Amino acid sequence: MLGLAQAAPAPAPAEKPEPPTPASIVAGAPGSDWRSIPAGDLLVMDLAGSRRVVIQLAPAPFAAGWTANIRRLAASHWWDGTAVVRVQDNYVVQWGDPTEKKPLPPGIEPVAESAYVTPLDMIADARPSIGAQDLPEASARAKRLSDIAIRGTVTQAAPEGWHERDSYAEWVEVLDSWPLAADRTNAWMPHCYGMVGVGRNLSPDTGTGAELYTVIGQAPRHLDRNIAIVGRVIAGMEHLSSLRRGTGDLGFYKTPAERTPIVRVRLASDLPASQRPAFEYLATDSDSFAAYVAARANRRDAFFNLPAGGVDICNLPVPVRAVK
Amino acid sequence: MLGLAQAAPAPAPAEKPEPPTPASIVAGAPGSDWRSIPAGDLLVMDLAGSRRVVIQLAPAPFAAGWTANIRRLAASHWWDGTAVVRVQDNYVVQWGDPTEKKPLPPGIEPVAESAYVTPLDMIADARPSIGAQDLPEASARAKRLSDIAIRGTVTQAAPEGWHERDSYAEWVEVLDSWPLAADRTNAWMPHCYGMVGVGRNLSPDTGTGAELYTVIGQAPRHLDRNIAIVGRVIAGMEHLSSLRRGTGDLGFYKTPAERTPIVRVRLASDLPASQRPAFEYLATDSDSFAAYVAARANRRDAFFNLPAGGVDICNLPVPVRAVK
Repeated sequence: MLGLAQAAPAPAPAEKPEPPTPASIVAGAPGSDWRSIPAGDLLVMDLAGSRRVVIQLAPAPFAAGWTANIRRLAASHWWDGTAVVRVQDNYVVQWGDPTEKKPLPPGIEPVAESAYVTPLDMIADARPSIGAQDLPEASARAKRLSDIAIRGTVTQAAPEGWHERDSYAEWVEVLDSWPLAADRTNAWMPHCYGMVGVGRNLSPDTGTGAELYTVIGQAPRHLDRNIAIVGRVIAGMEHLSSLRRGTGDLGFYKTPAERTPIVRVRLASDLPASQRPAFEYLATDSDSFAAYVAARANRRDAFFNLPAGGVDICNLPVPVRAVK
Repeated sequence: MLGLAQAAPAPAPAEKPEPPTPASIVAGAPGSDWRSIPAGDLLVMDLAGSRRVVIQLAPAPFAAGWTANIRRLAASHWWDGTAVVRVQDNYVVQWGDPTEKKPLPPGIEPVAESAYVTPLDMIADARPSIGAQDLPEASARAKRLSDIAIRGTVTQAAPEGWHERDSYAEWVEVLDSWPLAADRTNAWMPHCYGMVGVGRNLSPDTGTGAELYTVIGQAPRHLDRNIAIVGRVIAGMEHLSSLRRGTGDLGFYKTPAERTPIVRVRLASDLPASQRPAFEYLATDSDSFAAYVAARANRRDAFFNLPAGGVDICNLPVPVRAVK
């Protein structure tokens, strides 16, 4: 079957084994390299038609004000009966209250714009175990994000082939399974495919968390540091990305009938045990993850003629899998 | 209405006009800044259900062997009755003959792997008018791509904020409306959202052009230089990107009923005049395009608090519009 990647390549001669693929590295990772995601961090959104979307909320200290609001909104069943209201191609899918008049539950607090970014020293204090960072040729090195703050020009320290600076940040990193971009003072979660952000009005509004969106195209990184990122879709992304595009301004649907109803949104920890999904991610300080990044940056399996020599932070999805 | 961008911002005070947006710059571009796309470069694909997709074929000298094959396939009506066979989320939509047994028309020639890239001197000879490149703070400079070949380390020449090197190439550029990536010898079209490539089997196969795909997610730039890029979708992308994802390996559909039938594929120049679509693009050597890139790299309109200071080559779609 003609493909971009070979579904079932002919077996290689025994003396020349096929180099690993990102998928084969993930499939072969030992159980000890996987970490459970707490049920209290999983936001479960059930759309009409038995379509389930699962969002992992960002861990503290990132976006803590908004994720606190989101937990309250879910606990009060606020999203039940709301809808997906906007689908703009190569940009975002957005959901919330179409009337924009539904009262919010008690305890929803505004968050300051300063919280769009997180100081590096706060991250280092809160999360002393930092994810491994890959070198393209393989071996992982542990590195504290706080190191960034004391470097001069970080690009000069970047090894050949792994370009830590990109068009939007002085540094990119995967930290405890989350993509991060940073300057010398602060870090923020970049707008990669599947990341979830908080819709807002003009500054100084920062959004409450009631109106959410996810990225369905090329990473719109110009939104970084301008909107809060609060999590990422880890299952059911296809139920959002394949929705019919809206034909109104900014991809909003013109008629209510076009919207996709949201039946309910709950934290997994608030669901009955029999309905509670569970997930785990490949630990980003594991050798498996280092090998995975190396393979993403330099594909050497049979389909590829030329390894890229680098990888964009948004072309490096962290492996997540459902647990039975 | 809560949005990521403001649909109808409150009018700014007269003494402080709202800075232009990419959309307002495009809307205000004079007619002289637009260039017609030749009808012979437009591949018109009609899907079942009156869904029309229009692909602009890459101009010579890029991918010339494959685009010649594609013109022959269209002229022989080869795709009529074929189908969209694969939709893999955050990756590609692929179409062609599901049986993989349909005979090709006469004149389809294999293309060498060396044609995945194009020598810089060949580009300079074929296209002496090179698109303008933006500086983030605005003024455009004309620059010949062939300059790349005689520079030392191109990143050192990059102005602050516009990072010409990315994780996948030593240089990125927009040339006569096409995104290009380059090293010091060759250039190639990157796998941005909506770009169209040629499915193939393992090397030394390079594909004929009969099996095509387009990118529907984060740019899979690791495919650059490993597969031929032959064009880009300029209209109807939503008819492909919103298709139901396949549940088989690599997103192939498991059953024929899931496929989307292709009614016909023609060059626009072979359609009756009444059915022939026409498009034009914003000239990339125009002041309008320079201003557009500057605004994409540094959003200063009311919704944005902080301009990015750069832009990814795949987050810089060239404006294209239909002509009545």
